[in-house]
Amino acid sequence: MKVRVDVMLKEGVLDPQGKAIGQALGTLGFSGVRDVRAGKVILLDLAETDPARARDAATLMAEKLLANLVIENFTVTILE
Amino acid sequence: MKVRVDVMLKEGVLDPQGKAIGQALGTLGFSGVRDVRAGKVILLDLAETDPARARDAATLMAEKLLANLVIENFTVTILE
Repeated sequence: MKVRVDVMLKEGVLDPQGKAIGQALGTLGFSGVRDVRAGKVILLDLAETDPARARDAATLMAEKLLANLVIENFTVTILE
Repeated sequence: MKVRVDVMLKEGVLDPQGKAIGQALGTLGFSGVRDVRAGKVILLDLAETDPARARDAATLMAEKLLANLVIENFTVTILE
């Protein structure tokens, strides 16, 4: 079962990578970019075939390793 | 208009970050993790209000800056 975990910095946490991307887009001539936020995506291929259990497992993995819950939020999406 | 750009390493390109995450999950006692791929997500807040134009702009940004097309694929998703 394929599961996707998105990890983004929480609202209000400074995002230097996003800011750098925004500045670089401006330098390249792209206008109308109001804000940029950068994050991580982790695609997990799990042996688990039950969607609810796969979601629980991925949530635990995110809490234990993939996300820093002090500064980051995560979302789990079951893909297939 | 909010647009999401996902950037992932192409199939067949070695993904050391994904491998490291997979090993760390194993060390933490998570079993049944067959594969892990790591990528980036960039959330753009664009002044453009037309979805088709916003998609075109984000695609151009991905081609010019956000993705390295030699080793990475990207997908553009209009969020709102």
